Amino acid sequence: MQALAELRPAIPLDEGDPADDARLFRRCLGQYGTGVAIITAEADGVRAGVTVNSFASVSLDPPLILWSISRTSRSFPVFQAARRFAVNVLAADQIGVAARFAGKAEDKFAAGGWSAGRHGSPLVDGALVQFECTAEGAFDGGDHVVMLGRVGNVRRFAGEPLLFVAGQYSVGGTHPDVAPNPEAAGDSRGARAEDRLIALVFDLHNMLSARFDEHRTAEGVDVAVSRILAVVYEGPVAEGRLARATYLGQRHVEDALADLAAKSLIATDAEGRVALTDAGRRVREAIRRHWLAFQERQVAGIAPADLDTTIRTLKTLIARNA
Amino acid sequence: MQALAELRPAIPLDEGDPADDARLFRRCLGQYGTGVAIITAEADGVRAGVTVNSFASVSLDPPLILWSISRTSRSFPVFQAARRFAVNVLAADQIGVAARFAGKAEDKFAAGGWSAGRHGSPLVDGALVQFECTAEGAFDGGDHVVMLGRVGNVRRFAGEPLLFVAGQYSVGGTHPDVAPNPEAAGDSRGARAEDRLIALVFDLHNMLSARFDEHRTAEGVDVAVSRILAVVYEGPVAEGRLARATYLGQRHVEDALADLAAKSLIATDAEGRVALTDAGRRVREAIRRHWLAFQERQVAGIAPADLDTTIRTLKTLIARNA
Repeated sequence: MQALAELRPAIPLDEGDPADDARLFRRCLGQYGTGVAIITAEADGVRAGVTVNSFASVSLDPPLILWSISRTSRSFPVFQAARRFAVNVLAADQIGVAARFAGKAEDKFAAGGWSAGRHGSPLVDGALVQFECTAEGAFDGGDHVVMLGRVGNVRRFAGEPLLFVAGQYSVGGTHPDVAPNPEAAGDSRGARAEDRLIALVFDLHNMLSARFDEHRTAEGVDVAVSRILAVVYEGPVAEGRLARATYLGQRHVEDALADLAAKSLIATDAEGRVALTDAGRRVREAIRRHWLAFQERQVAGIAPADLDTTIRTLKTLIARNA
Repeated sequence: MQALAELRPAIPLDEGDPADDARLFRRCLGQYGTGVAIITAEADGVRAGVTVNSFASVSLDPPLILWSISRTSRSFPVFQAARRFAVNVLAADQIGVAARFAGKAEDKFAAGGWSAGRHGSPLVDGALVQFECTAEGAFDGGDHVVMLGRVGNVRRFAGEPLLFVAGQYSVGGTHPDVAPNPEAAGDSRGARAEDRLIALVFDLHNMLSARFDEHRTAEGVDVAVSRILAVVYEGPVAEGRLARATYLGQRHVEDALADLAAKSLIATDAEGRVALTDAGRRVREAIRRHWLAFQERQVAGIAPADLDTTIRTLKTLIARNA
């Protein structure tokens, strides 16, 4: 894949002074993928919890980590007063709890799903890793404060981490240059036909993913806009529900909605929900037509009977793994 | 997927005080996925560049970011003296350059592939994002120093970010709860058979991925060990080449090799390369047998003619997208 770096156009999609354009800066920052963590603390009987993607490792000896909190966060006074906090690294199936702690609910802990750690900081059930920390210092970081913590106890559980990449919740995908299954290495040498089917599904998936992305880019539609249009096409949606329905970060939904509204593709209906305009409906239908044409080109020329057999076989395999 | 969080066993895989066990701490930190960035600077005519995954956003107004450098890094004096630095967020196809700047080469810039930015800091060609920063402060972070930078100029290019998740280089995968293609939403309603084939490939891929992971976990083999055994099974490999060959981070290769050596599954050959012992060869062959049996169970009972047709159809689609 090294050659791809040379093929990529050297024309920036964005360029500028981030002091002049916070949205541009946010788009750029979003290209650095991160995990998702909920930081919790309790001070003077008040519990606080915030979802962040600013967690970073600092030092092994002593074991230090850091994260940042907005000075305007309602939880800021609790973290400022707390001498301890916990970092809960979220698993792939915890988008719901990520959204709860990213929101503005009065009591994010009322719904349960946590227990007090050794030093009182709430630990989130189902988290992949729980770091129990002592506050080690706080540094000025512009509109945020950088919190440094010394890890006193850590617990790690089985599971797959939740990621946040380019504004979307996602999971780690096998690098396209890597065989998806090291167990399968050597399958090309004299393997029987039935040993190859599963590997072919993986190969084809990886290729189609890349083609889809090229196709979407060529259409000038990013995945955020495409997902929002697809969801709202089904009917008007309250803005507060869009992040959850599209698996996009709240800030990225807001930015995409602002773009769509500026192009008159969406509007607010009488009940304050996000709705497609006629122009928005036409764009969504055009995207869908292009998608169907893309699929038709993919399968063109394959005998209908072969297609039917292939579909039946894949459905059998899916039913076995459901 | 919320129910999965409840189903996951509440028994930690790791637990303890990270001050007592740096490897345990590293495994836990690795569960928080990150991007990969090369930080560069020039001071007194000397250029420095290091690969890090400690980059984090800090503040929008003013635009601030941070990262950490080891006090024992040979590049540390350059970054300490430099008044400016650049953060180059790497694309998925830049594992090679990530490895170059993670290593100990005398002159990492000799191979080219960069140009000087506005303020002299080297900018890496093919990077997804280039943040040109002014050093804003440095904070004590145990065995590292936390470097705060104010971003003066940023450029973003098209492409997909390189990620580092659980010790492996990877790319962002679509969250399993999300339709892989928003364009395809609605395909279930009255779609023709040929419109469904591509969607089936995606569905089956997602299911098989999950089953593979369960299967591997049940075997007690992690993906790092499985990849290393697969690579070394082909013949002895110099340790310095293993990270690149397995797409694992250098630290994770070292940890996995230590585990494998402790179990006498690998040894060093006369030329100092990593080689499998007889016991290691048997483990690799057992993993492979289990993999073949798993595949056989998957396709059991499907008529050979149907399998052949399915394989032929998938190969046609692959050839179209190659």
